[in-house]
Amino acid sequence: SSSCTPIRATLFPGDGIGPEIAESVKQVFRDAEVPIEWEEHFVGDQIDPRTQSFLTWESLESVRQNRVGLKGPMATPIGKGHRSLNLTLRKELNLYANVRPCYSLPGYKTRYDDVNLITIRENTEGEYSGLEHQVVRGVVESLKIITRQASLRVAEYAFHYAKTHGRERVSAIHKANIMQKTDGLFLKCCREVAEKYPDIKYEEVVIDNCCMMLVKNPALFDVLVMPNLYGDIISDLCAGLVGGLGLTPSCNIGEGGIALAEAVHGSAPDIAGKNLANPTALLLSAVTMLRHLEFNDKAERIQNAILNTIAEGKYRTADLGGKSTTSDFTKAICDHL
Amino acid sequence: SSSCTPIRATLFPGDGIGPEIAESVKQVFRDAEVPIEWEEHFVGDQIDPRTQSFLTWESLESVRQNRVGLKGPMATPIGKGHRSLNLTLRKELNLYANVRPCYSLPGYKTRYDDVNLITIRENTEGEYSGLEHQVVRGVVESLKIITRQASLRVAEYAFHYAKTHGRERVSAIHKANIMQKTDGLFLKCCREVAEKYPDIKYEEVVIDNCCMMLVKNPALFDVLVMPNLYGDIISDLCAGLVGGLGLTPSCNIGEGGIALAEAVHGSAPDIAGKNLANPTALLLSAVTMLRHLEFNDKAERIQNAILNTIAEGKYRTADLGGKSTTSDFTKAICDHL
Ligand SMILES: CC(C)[C@H](C(=O)O)[C@@H](O)C(=O)O
Ligand SMILES: CC(C)[C@H](C(=O)O)[C@@H](O)C(=O)O
Repeated sequence: SSSCTPIRATLFPGDGIGPEIAESVKQVFRDAEVPIEWEEHFVGDQIDPRTQSFLTWESLESVRQNRVGLKGPMATPIGKGHRSLNLTLRKELNLYANVRPCYSLPGYKTRYDDVNLITIRENTEGEYSGLEHQVVRGVVESLKIITRQASLRVAEYAFHYAKTHGRERVSAIHKANIMQKTDGLFLKCCREVAEKYPDIKYEEVVIDNCCMMLVKNPALFDVLVMPNLYGDIISDLCAGLVGGLGLTPSCNIGEGGIALAEAVHGSAPDIAGKNLANPTALLLSAVTMLRHLEFNDKAERIQNAILNTIAEGKYRTADLGGKSTTSDFTKAICDHL
Repeated sequence: SSSCTPIRATLFPGDGIGPEIAESVKQVFRDAEVPIEWEEHFVGDQIDPRTQSFLTWESLESVRQNRVGLKGPMATPIGKGHRSLNLTLRKELNLYANVRPCYSLPGYKTRYDDVNLITIRENTEGEYSGLEHQVVRGVVESLKIITRQASLRVAEYAFHYAKTHGRERVSAIHKANIMQKTDGLFLKCCREVAEKYPDIKYEEVVIDNCCMMLVKNPALFDVLVMPNLYGDIISDLCAGLVGGLGLTPSCNIGEGGIALAEAVHGSAPDIAGKNLANPTALLLSAVTMLRHLEFNDKAERIQNAILNTIAEGKYRTADLGGKSTTSDFTKAICDHL
């Protein structure tokens, strides 16, 4: 699907270190001659009544039209009466699957060197329903909602992903021994989809056991699919295995083929504007966006340049124990292209 | 509180390897001259209508009267119309806190050598309410219940534990950024209790971030307190850091000072009766029971004998890469007393 007229993609540089790391992506994409034209959108300083959040309607429309986007960290301003920016994006754009590839980076040592898995998180319901209330004083409840529609949709995405990315196995993570109806429905949907993919192995793993297995031997896992909160927990755990959220890409998939890639780390206000931030997570997220667009050659070339720069170890930002600035690290990546 | 008349304690050997590892505890306690007289209770093969489970009313009464007990693994028989044995015990005995010390075992190598933390899990409510229903076809919901009473109770236990065990800090683990009312109430209760313990540091950590920090640097944590499901997940994760559930003790605390220690690993039917099982988790759990009874000298002596035997490495069961039988390993521990 590469073409001569560039593809328009929405870019949310985000807050804090966001603009600097977004600059890094723009530069690497320019040098790699990726045919993408960025349409930049910023988080407003007033609540847009159409979105009930600081994100404007125009920003959401931009993603809806371009169907691809990249997002830096967004710090939700404190105060009542508006929704978190991340949750607004997920809800308004129906970003139903959060996909996070997680692999050991050659040359960057952690306690694990054999991680190579993908977490796929249902991103719209479950414990994130927002439905909570006080029953009587001192007794509160929150509702976890699981639907057949959302479960099938994310399961379908997971198996399709496995198949198209040469993966062998999908593990559905659950706690159906306790939540028989909700997690039970999630599993039932996964099983239904699994039957349509006889070449992909399928297994079910209880979340507590999954976390124990992950820290003991993450190589046991391939593709993991799970309800919202388990995905939130497990994707961060897995990121921790390979060095943290500063190094791991993330991409949200929405209805109608929308892909919004994002760096899921924080906005690091303490180092913002100081040319110290590590752009790796946003760069690797941008790579997942390229793969989604099937710009596979460009994706491969850029990913290799990033990984090789980190592996070489000459240019590393402070969070990785180095002394490089964001721009020097970025330049090194461009030199590796 | 040591005395000449022995203390009566309930013993549930449990299923599978349960009887063998319980035998190991009995032997070590005998050799260490622990003034405890075991009152053995077995899981029945019929549902007791008074408990709606395979556990008899007499078994529960035994724990209620003795106020201390030790429990091996119990495999809940498959079928409908009865409750899980573990959940029955928690509910009927009001076992409100599950305490799991988790530390690196000298000489037993994992990827981590600096783990020394305690997870304290609320054990009666939260996601384990059992309240689930189908709203319409394809839409199910489950209720998470958080109460002020149960949250204060477990928070109080955690701070008291920290204070009496020379611990410096309590971290409350939550997802109140999403579940503001339920996890929010849990945090509010923790804060209230924290104010009564000015000498214990208090912090709040979001569960996803907590898991990432745990796998990167578990030494950051001391005592962790959390709602039911997070405790289920994090306690298994932590056990994984030091080698798994075969090595980590667990103790349940109930209203009125009940302490029911338990090995939380499975019943391992494949090796049952073969003298191959590792009794470490049950032995260390029995040690937590002794500490609860303030038999601190005996507890220390037995714990050291277990840890020294493992550290020495001459006698280890198959799960730890050794060739010892359960009884040889047990004898080695007795020799180390
Ligand atoms: C910031 C928070 C609401 C969010 C979540 O819980 O989903 C974050 O942890 C994430 O994973 O994107
Ligand atoms: C077996 C299961 C119901 C139980 C739980 O979820 O509490 C177990 O995982 C545990 O931690 O004791």
